[in-house]
Order: sequence, then C-alpha cells, then structure tokens
Amino acid sequence: MKVIATYQVPARACPDPKKKGEGIALGMTIGSWSGIPTSRQAKQAKYAGEYLGAEAVELPAGPFVRLQVGYPVSNFPPRISEILVAVFGKLSMDGEIKLVDLSFPDEFSRWFPGPRYGIEGVRKKLTLFHRPPIMSIFKCGFGLNPEEFSELFKEQTAGGVDLVKDDEIVFDEEERIERVKYCRKVMDDLLVRENRQVLYAVNLSGSPGSLFQTARQLVDAGANALLVNVLAYGFNVLQELASDTKINVPLVAHPALAGAFYSSPFHGFSSPLIMGTLMRMAGADLTLFPSPYGNVSIPRNEALEIGDKLRGTSLYRPSFPAPSAGIHPGMIPKIIEDFGNDVVINAGGGIHSHPDGTEKGARAFLDAIEGICEGNSLEEIAKNSPPLKNALARWAT
Amino acid sequence: MKVIATYQVPARACPDPKKKGEGIALGMTIGSWSGIPTSRQAKQAKYAGEYLGAEAVELPAGPFVRLQVGYPVSNFPPRISEILVAVFGKLSMDGEIKLVDLSFPDEFSRWFPGPRYGIEGVRKKLTLFHRPPIMSIFKCGFGLNPEEFSELFKEQTAGGVDLVKDDEIVFDEEERIERVKYCRKVMDDLLVRENRQVLYAVNLSGSPGSLFQTARQLVDAGANALLVNVLAYGFNVLQELASDTKINVPLVAHPALAGAFYSSPFHGFSSPLIMGTLMRMAGADLTLFPSPYGNVSIPRNEALEIGDKLRGTSLYRPSFPAPSAGIHPGMIPKIIEDFGNDVVINAGGGIHSHPDGTEKGARAFLDAIEGICEGNSLEEIAKNSPPLKNALARWAT
Repeated sequence: MKVIATYQVPARACPDPKKKGEGIALGMTIGSWSGIPTSRQAKQAKYAGEYLGAEAVELPAGPFVRLQVGYPVSNFPPRISEILVAVFGKLSMDGEIKLVDLSFPDEFSRWFPGPRYGIEGVRKKLTLFHRPPIMSIFKCGFGLNPEEFSELFKEQTAGGVDLVKDDEIVFDEEERIERVKYCRKVMDDLLVRENRQVLYAVNLSGSPGSLFQTARQLVDAGANALLVNVLAYGFNVLQELASDTKINVPLVAHPALAGAFYSSPFHGFSSPLIMGTLMRMAGADLTLFPSPYGNVSIPRNEALEIGDKLRGTSLYRPSFPAPSAGIHPGMIPKIIEDFGNDVVINAGGGIHSHPDGTEKGARAFLDAIEGICEGNSLEEIAKNSPPLKNALARWAT
Repeated sequence: MKVIATYQVPARACPDPKKKGEGIALGMTIGSWSGIPTSRQAKQAKYAGEYLGAEAVELPAGPFVRLQVGYPVSNFPPRISEILVAVFGKLSMDGEIKLVDLSFPDEFSRWFPGPRYGIEGVRKKLTLFHRPPIMSIFKCGFGLNPEEFSELFKEQTAGGVDLVKDDEIVFDEEERIERVKYCRKVMDDLLVRENRQVLYAVNLSGSPGSLFQTARQLVDAGANALLVNVLAYGFNVLQELASDTKINVPLVAHPALAGAFYSSPFHGFSSPLIMGTLMRMAGADLTLFPSPYGNVSIPRNEALEIGDKLRGTSLYRPSFPAPSAGIHPGMIPKIIEDFGNDVVINAGGGIHSHPDGTEKGARAFLDAIEGICEGNSLEEIAKNSPPLKNALARWAT
C-alpha cells in the first residue's frame, strides 16, 4: 500500500528518468542498498520506495518530466507534516524539483479527518442552498475596541453577506475574545430579527502549546467558524483542529505564504496540491485560494484544478472553494460559470470600496448573485438595484 | 519601533520602486487610506507600514530591486509564524517577489528565546573545545528493534563521532522511547569507559497537541538532544521548545522542505533568512543547512552567509552551523577554511560508506579533524591513519 508522489523536473536536468526516479525512491527511504549489510537487506526492503514511471510534459516554462515514486504507507504516521518531510524534505534541496501531486490509498486516507462540515454542512449552518454564499473580508481592524470592531462587523452583515472573514494579519490576542462576544451579539440579532444566519471566521493564532485551548475558548465565546493560517502553523495543526470534537465549527483555511510554495515551476509544490488536496484532507471546510480574476496571481487552469481537488470524488466531504482577490460584482457571472453554484464569493475591496459604502457594497453582491441564479443578466438586475448599478460603474473595465 | 522586511523583485516587474514599496507598506497593514473613514485614519496611522527605500542589485538571474518596508512591532505578537504571515502571507502570492531579509529591533528581539546552549553550551556538554565536533547521520533505521538500532548507534560512536543525528524521515513513534533508552546505555558506557560524552539528536515528531509532551518524555527517557523538522511544524514550534524549561537539551534544526522555500530567485525566502536568522532567533542550538560542497545544492556565498547569520553579532547565543550533504574526510580542510573551528562536521555516506565500515568511517573523520587542527595536512595524517588513507582513496576526485 503506497502513497504516490509525482515530481516535476526540467527535462534538461533529467536525461535518464528511470535512474533519477530510482535514486529518489531509495534516497528518500532506505538510502542505498550498498549502505545496508546483506543480513539486513530483506528486512529493509519493505521500507524502500519504488519508482513507478515517468511522462514528458510540455509547460509554458519548457519541457519537463514527471516522475512517480511510491512510498510504503508504513514509513510514516498519518500526518501531513511528516509525510511532506518523508517524500520531499531532503529532496526539496536537491536542485530543480517540484512536488506536484500526492495520491493516497483509501485505507490510508481514512486516517485523515477531511472536512467535518464541508459544503453541505456549511450550507446547512447558513440555511442557504440556492446560491453561492457571500463572504466579506474584514479590513483595517487594527486597534479597534470590541465595540468599534463590532460596528464594522454589523455594517458588512447588514448588506447581506453570509460569512465574515477576519483579516488574517490582525492577531489582537488580548481583545479577540471580547470582539467575538460583541460580534456574536450582532449575529444573534440578525437571526432573531431577520432569520438570517451569519458565520464569522475568527482568526486563530497563538503559541503551539495554547492554540487548541484558544480555539476552544473562541468557540465558547461565540465564534462559529475559525480562520487558520495553515501554512504558517503546519498542516498538522489544521488536521488536529478538524479532529477535535470540542472545536465543532467550520474551519476556514487561509493560503497565507502559499505563494512562497507554489509559484515556481522548478521548486516547491503545485498549487492544487498545497491548496486543494492537502487542505481538504486536513479538514478545511472552506478553502481560500488566489482567484484567476482581477489582479491575477494564479492561472485559470490551476484555479479550476484547485476547485476540482476541493470538490471532486473523494473519501472526504467537499471543501467550499473561495477563489479570492480582485473580486467585484461584475465578475459574478464568470465565477459561477467557472465554479458553479458551490463556490464562496469572497470580496474585500469589492465590498468595502463601493462608492456608497460597505453595506451597499455587500448589497450589490447579494442582488447580483440572487439575480444571476434566477437567470437574469447583470444589466437587467442593475435596473432595479442601485447598489449594483453603482458597483458596475465603479469597477467598469 | 519597526521590523524591517527586505523584498527582492525583478527590475522588469518594478518600474517604480517607491510606488511598489508604498503599496506593500499599506497593503500588508491597514489596506489603503481610502478604505478607512477620515474619523478613524489617525487611530489607524500607527499600524501602517512604511516604505523605507530601495536599491538595485545585479544577480545571476538578472537585475533586481530590493525594497525595504518597516512594520510596527505592535502589529504582531512576538512569534515567527505570525510575523511571516504579517509581512509575507498575502504578498507571497502577488507575482514575483521574494522575502530576503528580516531585521528586528533589540527591544523586540528580546521576546524571542534564541539558542539556550548555542555553540559554547554544546561544546561544554561535549567537553570539546579544540576542534569542530563530528556528527554522524543515522541511516537505514527503518524497522529495527531498539537493540538492533542501538547496535548501529554503537558502531558510529565507537569510531569517535561526538553527535549522532537521527534520520529525519524515521518517525517510528511506537519504538522511539525504547530506542532512546538503549542508545542512552551506549552513551553512558562511553562516558564511564572512555570519558567521552556523546549527544544523540532524537527525531521529534507527533501531533501538535502531543508534541511537547513527547519531547519531555524523550528527554526523560534519556535523549540529550532533539532533532526538529522546523519548517514542517512551523517556526513557532521550535520557538516554544526553546522556551520550555523542561526540555533542557540542545535543539538541532533540520532544514527538511527548505528547498521549496529558498530555491527560486523570484519567490519564497532567502536561504540565510530561513536557515540562518530565523532558526537562531527561534532557538536552534545547532542548525543544519545544505553545504556548498559535493553534490552542491546551495552557492558558497549563501552557505557562508547562513554561517554568519548563525554566529554573527546578535542578542542571541551563536547557533552551531552544520553544512550538510556530500561531506567526506577529504573536504575537512576546506570546511574549516570556510567556517573556522566553530562548525559541526556532519556526514552520512561519508562515514557509513567507508570501505572498512562505519566505525572506521568515523575514525577517518576524527583523525583528519584532529590532525588538521594540529596544523598537519591530510596526506601527512593519512600516513599514520589507515582509515583516513582508505577514505581519501575512496573519495578521491
């Protein structure tokens, strides 16, 4: 039973794929046969990696070879951080090589949590099934007291967003619990007065020894979702949060630092692996990744592949994809065309920089999404929605 | 009081460094002035980043611009994982940009542990002051019972190594405590019989919630050093291990996965930042990084710069540099010329693949290092050291 790793190497650096692949298979497991006394070789054999084959691929950056190596699952515990060390730790430093895919046998996959709620569970919490949810990104939250903070929270939710995501760089650990309590009041009010459920993804931070306790405290204080900077804390942290029955709220995975991992064709990890496969496996109920729109930072085919990894056939529940950055209401038809109904429309500037303010900015999104899902065009919807009309004018290209 | 981040951007992508730098300074902190109501602008001003200047640099990959941005230290808690998110999280995904340096004001640096032992403390534990210590890398440890494992341990230490480092990919969590107990017996024997102290850096792994308990258990069982895959678990983990008074053993930082971070000139982090500055700040007493020798994976100037970051003037104790990979006894003069006496000579194949076996492989290193430090040449030393003579023949270029 093997975990299969796919590595991408420039063709010029890989004249003999079989030799390269076999070198990796042994080098990343038992070292080399010559280093093992004959008496121990049989015992070590079951830990050896196995070269499985290669194929040539033509990419914008040139010709590459993709090599597959199988690793016995008994070589590592069922935790993503250790698996990454095992299949790419030392190898990452061995010249030009990129880890583009990992696939896991079902019997091994079962050890990982996957999303506890996933798309369906998040929709149930929101009681929202007919359209993509809207998520707003909290901006400029530095130094606000809990009351001021909750005022901004109220402004966003008043316009109709379904989820609010903390700014991932505001840590404010001393005031966070109080902030959550104030925002929870706003959410409870919305539920009572408008029968609308909102989820607030609170930025989780803390020292490793206190992170899980902090998460439980936030949940106890009323956080009904948590935002996790997964790559800064390690995949094991997300995996353990998703396995902790006391942290019974959806987990929102932020891709902070991901660009350092996926951007080069010659090094690091592929974006669908790091922001798709592994986020879902580790338990992200909702996963943010760079959108292919606006200030582009990821090619469209990669963004779609991330969407596939998050939602395609798997042992795990699907994770809600949230292609992010540069989203304004004019893009909604394109986003829904690309990702379908099961996508989170996530916007920061596209909501807050609306000419009539944040509340109207959120309303423009809501009107656009509802209308598009009813089969209307943006132009038609805008006739009856001044907020959308003004948004389309503001972000006209 | 500001943390200063230096970013490297290709010149072609940075026609206006001031505009780019100011965009980063605001975009990575408060967002934009236009997004903040006038009434709150004064309050937010103290959280804004500040563009500090730029310089042009010519690198092998072409012309680049290095931009400096200052971030108020009050924006983040004194933990490296959060700081990386704050200064590079979102920005890492914004096209071609690499974080090459971070500098911290002393008043802020004081919050970080730095190495508890450092070079001097490790030397004291080894009672070894006149020459570089030798570290051997455990190979092929899969599936061995504790007794078999300790036999291999004994073989390495018998030849004269000062430190033994676990293979970072052998997790073996069920047997690890027993293995440590057996190896500890070997070490205690060496101390009694030969008055030689050996340190064994045991590979630390575990789920985030149990990692610190596991570390304490390993120390209680006799581990006198711990090996940490820092980049897989996050810098905060190393930082907290170094701050935990119950984990009172040297911490050895392994660079597994670092190649995914530092290899591209256009993305990620510089190698001196990721394997020098931050490892020391977080508390690595001994830091492994790719050597510039043998199967080269890092340019010589970068390796020397890592050495400088680990040992140069700082609030923190110096961290022992261990340039690794492709080290055999013939390289010792070069290593000592490059790094001086305060370097760890770290070898795997260079010890275990000696034609006369592991013990003689270690002996060849010991004879060579002792002789070089007495002012002799390898050729002279080899006349009286058959192990060194055979090693030089084996690895003759």
